[in-house]
Amino acid sequence: MKTFTRSDLEALCARIAPVDQESAREAQRLLDGKTKPRRSLGMLEDLACAYAAIRRVPAPPMPSKALIVMGADHGVAAEGVSAYPQEVTAQMLLNFASGGAAINVLARHAGALVRVVDIGVKTPVVHPSIVSARVAAGTASFLHGPAMSEAQALAALFVGVEQAQALAREGVSAIGLGEMGIGNTTASTALTAVLTGAPVPEITGFGTGITDGVKRRKVEVIEAAIKLNAPNARDALDVLQKLGGLEIAGLAGVVLGAASSGVAVVLDGFIASTAALVAARIAPASRDYMIASHRSAEPGHRAVLRALEKQPLLELDMRLGEGTGAALAFTLLDATLKVLHEMATFESAGVSDSGA
Amino acid sequence: MKTFTRSDLEALCARIAPVDQESAREAQRLLDGKTKPRRSLGMLEDLACAYAAIRRVPAPPMPSKALIVMGADHGVAAEGVSAYPQEVTAQMLLNFASGGAAINVLARHAGALVRVVDIGVKTPVVHPSIVSARVAAGTASFLHGPAMSEAQALAALFVGVEQAQALAREGVSAIGLGEMGIGNTTASTALTAVLTGAPVPEITGFGTGITDGVKRRKVEVIEAAIKLNAPNARDALDVLQKLGGLEIAGLAGVVLGAASSGVAVVLDGFIASTAALVAARIAPASRDYMIASHRSAEPGHRAVLRALEKQPLLELDMRLGEGTGAALAFTLLDATLKVLHEMATFESAGVSDSGA
Repeated sequence: MKTFTRSDLEALCARIAPVDQESAREAQRLLDGKTKPRRSLGMLEDLACAYAAIRRVPAPPMPSKALIVMGADHGVAAEGVSAYPQEVTAQMLLNFASGGAAINVLARHAGALVRVVDIGVKTPVVHPSIVSARVAAGTASFLHGPAMSEAQALAALFVGVEQAQALAREGVSAIGLGEMGIGNTTASTALTAVLTGAPVPEITGFGTGITDGVKRRKVEVIEAAIKLNAPNARDALDVLQKLGGLEIAGLAGVVLGAASSGVAVVLDGFIASTAALVAARIAPASRDYMIASHRSAEPGHRAVLRALEKQPLLELDMRLGEGTGAALAFTLLDATLKVLHEMATFESAGVSDSGA
Repeated sequence: MKTFTRSDLEALCARIAPVDQESAREAQRLLDGKTKPRRSLGMLEDLACAYAAIRRVPAPPMPSKALIVMGADHGVAAEGVSAYPQEVTAQMLLNFASGGAAINVLARHAGALVRVVDIGVKTPVVHPSIVSARVAAGTASFLHGPAMSEAQALAALFVGVEQAQALAREGVSAIGLGEMGIGNTTASTALTAVLTGAPVPEITGFGTGITDGVKRRKVEVIEAAIKLNAPNARDALDVLQKLGGLEIAGLAGVVLGAASSGVAVVLDGFIASTAALVAARIAPASRDYMIASHRSAEPGHRAVLRALEKQPLLELDMRLGEGTGAALAFTLLDATLKVLHEMATFESAGVSDSGA
């Protein structure tokens, strides 16, 4: 395993440029000339402008889209916090590789490539379509000590950085975040509690469908883990290392790698958004590269999006993860760019403008 | 102009069958077998089940989609209630026919056909791609009397019925409602106030972008028109005739025609949804054939959707009309049907189920 230091991370963060607000303003001017009342496409117009700012051009070409789906196991799954057995992480990665999962269907629908990464499933998942970039055989249970060492957290971050940068070199301009890891709403809730200051019981949800009793246990486990590990809330890497997951660290790295390459990052649900929050705390400039796809049914997601100051495009009561919300948002990104490229102007169509 | 009577309308309504709830339940059972936590696709699952009930089959084939965009003028536009001059109705119909409007772009994005109908623009709009089914050269201003005669309202309704039935015969299985008509938020607000009982000032919005002063005038005009015409709120045809528009009557007819043909109707914004509310009051069974696409920025839309007891899929702060929200919802309908058809089951993928 290649080793990385905090200085490597700082060097990466220093390479993230501010997005180009002038391109956003010019995109809005283009939209204002189209045959529709000004701003009447609402959030779709904001989306076009945000993407223009990221790509540093007023009318960016249609995006080339990919989803990075990272899978890893969580030591905390042994504490009885999930509805599904841990084997499901590996089984679902194979399902992703075979094209049968929800994310495959929705990625095909959106015209997005799916890259599946085993970044730390308990038992290696071997398949020609799965990238093996294993940092560890899952995390340790944070009920008994830190989930990862700092070296592991940094290694996982840089797996994400490299995956994002590789896609950027292939011409991908928008990357969606996807994840799979039994137990990862527990890790995300712990991270969110520390990073946002939200009370654990308020942001703990039913994950993949646990009972009230299991949910009470989940709250206890998270509260005990925060007390035991005493992470420094002002040091996101410390919080990530002690309470995170390998796939969460990897996705935080995807955000940083994408932002450093001028690529848009489309968030997904609670877990992917928590990874994005970690990235935003490490490198605040990365926030402007993020597009919030949807608000999930998980209560913690609301706290994370509020901390990121992001308004999600969709709210469909989904709680599946995998990148499914990101895939749906890709179809809206395509839609708004087509508006920018294909719509007639008041002038070209001979339509009277209100002048408003 | 062919004449229709209230009995013709009653005969049509009698042909609307209840949707098939057993197909909806079976669609849910199919979704529950897919490799995802049960119900984790939230409103997308409800959408698949609703569509299955309409099509009377648990796993309906991918939908064949069309948008009917009806254009007409409004006498009330002369009262200074709109941001745009009345010529824009005709100009925009030509823009639809040339493929340059937002609805054309979004319909292409969704793979939906666009059928443009001149049901009563002030000056006929002649173009090989525009269906001419003119009932009148616009409505009269309802500030001085009824907008239409009962015969005109019925004729416009049946234009919509015939358009929907024709598409159904061509194999279309989902029809989106679109409209264009300078002044039509004024008509819709008047209809909504009477049909839902909501106070006019609460549901009057900025339409295509009027000023505060014009908005105050709009409220006065609507309140005066309701007082003058004194429609019978329990007789939707009476309300429609006195306060409606030709395109609104036409779209109400599209709903009834689609429902009588077992075709799903995808609502759009405030105006199209008001037409759907008129249809629901004429034929309550038609309600189950409706899918609410989005909630627009127009305040009256909330009152209409509440009256229809419909939860919209999208809320993007859009206020463009034309069927743009319906077109975006078509992409979600496709997505959820692909989930139904293409996703692996726990059994086929060898993934452990939670049993929950």
